[in-house]
Amino acid sequence: MEQLAWLAPAAGALALLMAFFLASRVAQQDPGEPRMQEISQAIRQGAMAFLSREYRTLAIFVVALAVIIAVIGFLTPSEVMKPETAIAYVAGAVTSVLAGFIGMRVATLANVRTTQAARRGLAPALDVAFSGGSVMGFSVVGLGMLGLGVVYYLFQGDISVVSGFSLGASSVALFARVGGGIYTKAADVGADLVGKVEAGIPEDDPRNPAVIADNVGDNVGDVAGMGADLYESYVGSVVAAIAIAAEAATSQTPLPATLPLIIAAGGIVASIIGAFFVRAAGGNDPARALRAGTFASGILTLIAVFLISYLGYGDLRWFWATLAGLAAGIAIGLLSEYYTSAEYAPVKGIAEASQTGPATNIIAGLAVGMRSTAWPIVVIAAAILLAYTVAGGGAAGIFAIGLAGVGMLSTTATTVSVDAYGPIADNAGGIAEMSGLLPTVREITDTLDSVGNTTAAIGKGFAIGSAALTALALFSAYATAVKLHEVSLTDPRLVVGLFLGGMLPYLFSSMTMQAVGRAAFRMIEEVRRQFREIPGIMEGKAKPDYARCVDISTAAALREMVVPGLMAVVVPVAVGLWSKTALGGLLAGSLVSGVLLAIKMANAGGAWDNAKKYIEAGHYGGKRSDPHKAAVVGDTVGDPFKDTSGPSLNILLKLMSIVALVFSTLFTRM
Amino acid sequence: MEQLAWLAPAAGALALLMAFFLASRVAQQDPGEPRMQEISQAIRQGAMAFLSREYRTLAIFVVALAVIIAVIGFLTPSEVMKPETAIAYVAGAVTSVLAGFIGMRVATLANVRTTQAARRGLAPALDVAFSGGSVMGFSVVGLGMLGLGVVYYLFQGDISVVSGFSLGASSVALFARVGGGIYTKAADVGADLVGKVEAGIPEDDPRNPAVIADNVGDNVGDVAGMGADLYESYVGSVVAAIAIAAEAATSQTPLPATLPLIIAAGGIVASIIGAFFVRAAGGNDPARALRAGTFASGILTLIAVFLISYLGYGDLRWFWATLAGLAAGIAIGLLSEYYTSAEYAPVKGIAEASQTGPATNIIAGLAVGMRSTAWPIVVIAAAILLAYTVAGGGAAGIFAIGLAGVGMLSTTATTVSVDAYGPIADNAGGIAEMSGLLPTVREITDTLDSVGNTTAAIGKGFAIGSAALTALALFSAYATAVKLHEVSLTDPRLVVGLFLGGMLPYLFSSMTMQAVGRAAFRMIEEVRRQFREIPGIMEGKAKPDYARCVDISTAAALREMVVPGLMAVVVPVAVGLWSKTALGGLLAGSLVSGVLLAIKMANAGGAWDNAKKYIEAGHYGGKRSDPHKAAVVGDTVGDPFKDTSGPSLNILLKLMSIVALVFSTLFTRM
Repeated sequence: MEQLAWLAPAAGALALLMAFFLASRVAQQDPGEPRMQEISQAIRQGAMAFLSREYRTLAIFVVALAVIIAVIGFLTPSEVMKPETAIAYVAGAVTSVLAGFIGMRVATLANVRTTQAARRGLAPALDVAFSGGSVMGFSVVGLGMLGLGVVYYLFQGDISVVSGFSLGASSVALFARVGGGIYTKAADVGADLVGKVEAGIPEDDPRNPAVIADNVGDNVGDVAGMGADLYESYVGSVVAAIAIAAEAATSQTPLPATLPLIIAAGGIVASIIGAFFVRAAGGNDPARALRAGTFASGILTLIAVFLISYLGYGDLRWFWATLAGLAAGIAIGLLSEYYTSAEYAPVKGIAEASQTGPATNIIAGLAVGMRSTAWPIVVIAAAILLAYTVAGGGAAGIFAIGLAGVGMLSTTATTVSVDAYGPIADNAGGIAEMSGLLPTVREITDTLDSVGNTTAAIGKGFAIGSAALTALALFSAYATAVKLHEVSLTDPRLVVGLFLGGMLPYLFSSMTMQAVGRAAFRMIEEVRRQFREIPGIMEGKAKPDYARCVDISTAAALREMVVPGLMAVVVPVAVGLWSKTALGGLLAGSLVSGVLLAIKMANAGGAWDNAKKYIEAGHYGGKRSDPHKAAVVGDTVGDPFKDTSGPSLNILLKLMSIVALVFSTLFTRM
Repeated sequence: MEQLAWLAPAAGALALLMAFFLASRVAQQDPGEPRMQEISQAIRQGAMAFLSREYRTLAIFVVALAVIIAVIGFLTPSEVMKPETAIAYVAGAVTSVLAGFIGMRVATLANVRTTQAARRGLAPALDVAFSGGSVMGFSVVGLGMLGLGVVYYLFQGDISVVSGFSLGASSVALFARVGGGIYTKAADVGADLVGKVEAGIPEDDPRNPAVIADNVGDNVGDVAGMGADLYESYVGSVVAAIAIAAEAATSQTPLPATLPLIIAAGGIVASIIGAFFVRAAGGNDPARALRAGTFASGILTLIAVFLISYLGYGDLRWFWATLAGLAAGIAIGLLSEYYTSAEYAPVKGIAEASQTGPATNIIAGLAVGMRSTAWPIVVIAAAILLAYTVAGGGAAGIFAIGLAGVGMLSTTATTVSVDAYGPIADNAGGIAEMSGLLPTVREITDTLDSVGNTTAAIGKGFAIGSAALTALALFSAYATAVKLHEVSLTDPRLVVGLFLGGMLPYLFSSMTMQAVGRAAFRMIEEVRRQFREIPGIMEGKAKPDYARCVDISTAAALREMVVPGLMAVVVPVAVGLWSKTALGGLLAGSLVSGVLLAIKMANAGGAWDNAKKYIEAGHYGGKRSDPHKAAVVGDTVGDPFKDTSGPSLNILLKLMSIVALVFSTLFTRM
């Protein structure tokens, strides 16, 4: 089976063909009337302006790090670091950028076409929106596996070089997720506070100068940000499993290093078939259609992995490990839904607590967020133990934990497709509103959008779970590489590492939360300025300066992410140079603390959001009642929780562990 | 030097003499007019009613656990567990109960006498209040060292038995801190919401049926709760250091197992002298007087430890380790002050953020709380590394980390005295208000009270720091006892333990936060009922049923603590029976995650509180302005943070690690 690694780039190419096919289908759809096209173009221009500026800053970062790696590579013996790692690193960054670029471009083509399709009914609108989202999904896995596969072949599977590819993906994710997260919330809060609260104009009103930035933000956060996040997890989980196989294999237990690539290939094929299930199950129940696609690709993946394990290796251990990971991913997603959907007790409890004011709403939300960590942690623990145990423990067991990560991420194409569908539907609604279409159109886009909100919550849970397993696998690869096999639990370097590592997510989250505050403040000032200085803006006679708002969000996001971003790269290197045991503790501490904080923030944020919507639906007095005002406070607190700080933690964890893995040989040789 | 262990019980007896002397001085003071005495008596009766009911429930718990220990002791060989451990366990519980009983009794005598003394001026009032608080301080260290010293002698320093004493102290702390924390906030919120907000009567108004429960709550939380918490830390740190010395000593590195006892004795003598510094520095600046006492006892302790190390052991390593701990304790206290005092940027920033409403107030407070974890963690890490390194690493290094904990807690008498002074001053103000004394009296008690608020914040920081070092030392003792010297960082049992351990503080905090909500709700209903059903209550003609409110708080607090309390005992035993490596991971994970969460909660809570007071002092529009309303929301969220959930985490960490240590031999033999 080991010679079948070519399946990965082949499946990647197939996925790209699929993306191309879907993209041209989207492009062929009717873009609607000129007014709609004009708005859509403003969003697309804003999104592309953000991307191009982000990529320019990113380029400096990537080139600098590539040069550092290359220099270390030339100066040290090849066992420590090879200059080729820099090439793999740049390849990882470029492919991730490309995936984000394609995905965003098509998503911003799909939004207006979804609006137009919605005039014909729910089924065609769902089709366009999901096709648009799927381009992102298949670009992520296509470029991921094509790129990684080529690098793997080019450097003969030398993991010290190949891991650079994963570091490249992480660098892009840092910018897309942290910068994107700050962008989207600054624009959202700015648009809402001045528009809705101060000026009293409705959401998505074209008179609001920040309205385009707000719609751009949906794409920046949920298409580009989520895509880069899962690109990083996807590539990282495969690289980690290969690294474990390379480092942990002994003569007694040879490990199938190419299996992760083959499983990923199987997952791609399964996801392509799964996408057709969405169309087939389509019609008038988008939630059912998306669920059908998700389950179909999951089950097909499992069948593929079963066949690979049984026929290829005569060894079902790898199947069970993959199953454990895939099941854990689905379970964590469903648990997120339980804690954040208005259909269940937690959100209803928050809505009830809103009756006694904002303070009790906040306390209830925080309590739900903290409580919601328990089951996901139990699920992750069970998956780890199950994979390890069925594989018989030892080196094979650690490899099996890595495979569980690969399994969880094997259906990444479907997950990203479902997730990227959300902002397209959201944008479609905004365009319908701004171009003054019939309310029936808006109703259809609202139906699509509300399904998108649920899938977004599930997607966030999945992203955290996958980040946890990927970071754990990368951590295991690091610990295996630097041989942390006989560490004393009382070793103060380990203890100090654990404490410092546990603290970093708190510091990082505090930074990103305050960054949103500062960026939003600039946006608010700009919107106020335009309302004040542009005559006729409120009467709809003068056009607001949308581009200026987009620009402010972009500049603020990129500036604010510098310090937390550098922290994520510099701290692990500095600690690793001091002590590789301390770095092991640092990674373990940040993993545990970061996953908990991320789950808490994502679920509390989602729960507050839906508690507000639950009240708006007519409970406890409905809109504009006192409980509603209290619930708005919770929703506002939850916004940076769920869209900035929480998701950014995924990146922190993965980035720190891939940095540790890439530089691990440097630490052992010091 | 090893034969000098008798110094500990001797110093304990001396401390008790000091407590007795101070108690009789307090009792001799003028208790004021009948109206004042009546109110004071209601508070005392309420406090004692809570204590007696708490102790009855506690007795069931202690007897049950003692029987379990004794039965295991009789059924297993003496290397696994000795029946005598049950005796030590009961002794630890009884002495802690006694300390709490004495402290509460005198504190509730001192409050009214402080009010009366305040009619003569600031200096006499400070003298009475601090004397009252000091009784608690000296009872804690006196009973702690007398009890532990006697048990140590009786069982010839057999650590497997002696550690039972620490478990006893932990059991009491669980009830006093968790139950007390729920009590105090339920009463506070209940009294405020119905009294201040609904009925529009001022704070401490005698017409409010919950007013006595609220004043009782101050004592229950800050006297009995804090006292039992630090009693647990005090005893636990000494036991942990002795255990490390006993387990880690090798023929090459014999370790001075009685040194922790001798250092504790030195700290007691230093604190007695320090108490006189407070009186000498007294006069019109209570803050300066308390600071003088704290620094004097710290410096005197260091001199004593220097002499013990140099003259007794010819070895300054132990001095440096003690110094590291003591300095870390002071540093963490001062950092708490920075993040929670209105004089510095963090609180001012929260006040500023209140201008844009409750949501930004909450976000700013949470960000401050998260950010405030960074420096204390760095301080703890530095203390650990310093102690370990100066001792030359290895077994001596681990012992030195234990000594750092002993050092931090050596001035416990002073810390508890300063802390218990706060609620006495607070109560004194309440009594002045309720008995209608002249405003000048209230001004003096307010001055005392405001100093008490600052010392309370410092005390909370210190309590967390000491819990962290104590839990770490107990964890080290456990890891040494079960020989977790060669653990692989990729061992899935370790990883699973870390994840589960990290999650427990989140679950525990969620439980305690919701417990406050439920208990407060019952209190609110009762106060509303009394306002409705007792005629003439609002006109001050009929007396409210204070006892009923006290009763409701008490019953709710004791009921609500059952589940989180059992969790803290059952989980480590269950995990330990499965795998001692997993238990090691569980303790490490909960330690890191719990300390971070506790610091965040305590500092965010304190910062919100003082941001509100800062606005009330006339900034951003002052009382009743919109920013003030926003700040009240933050303060209300912060209340369970800083007075229930945050402090309860101290107990969770210490209790789980002492449970692990006491049952450690059971886990190794399974």
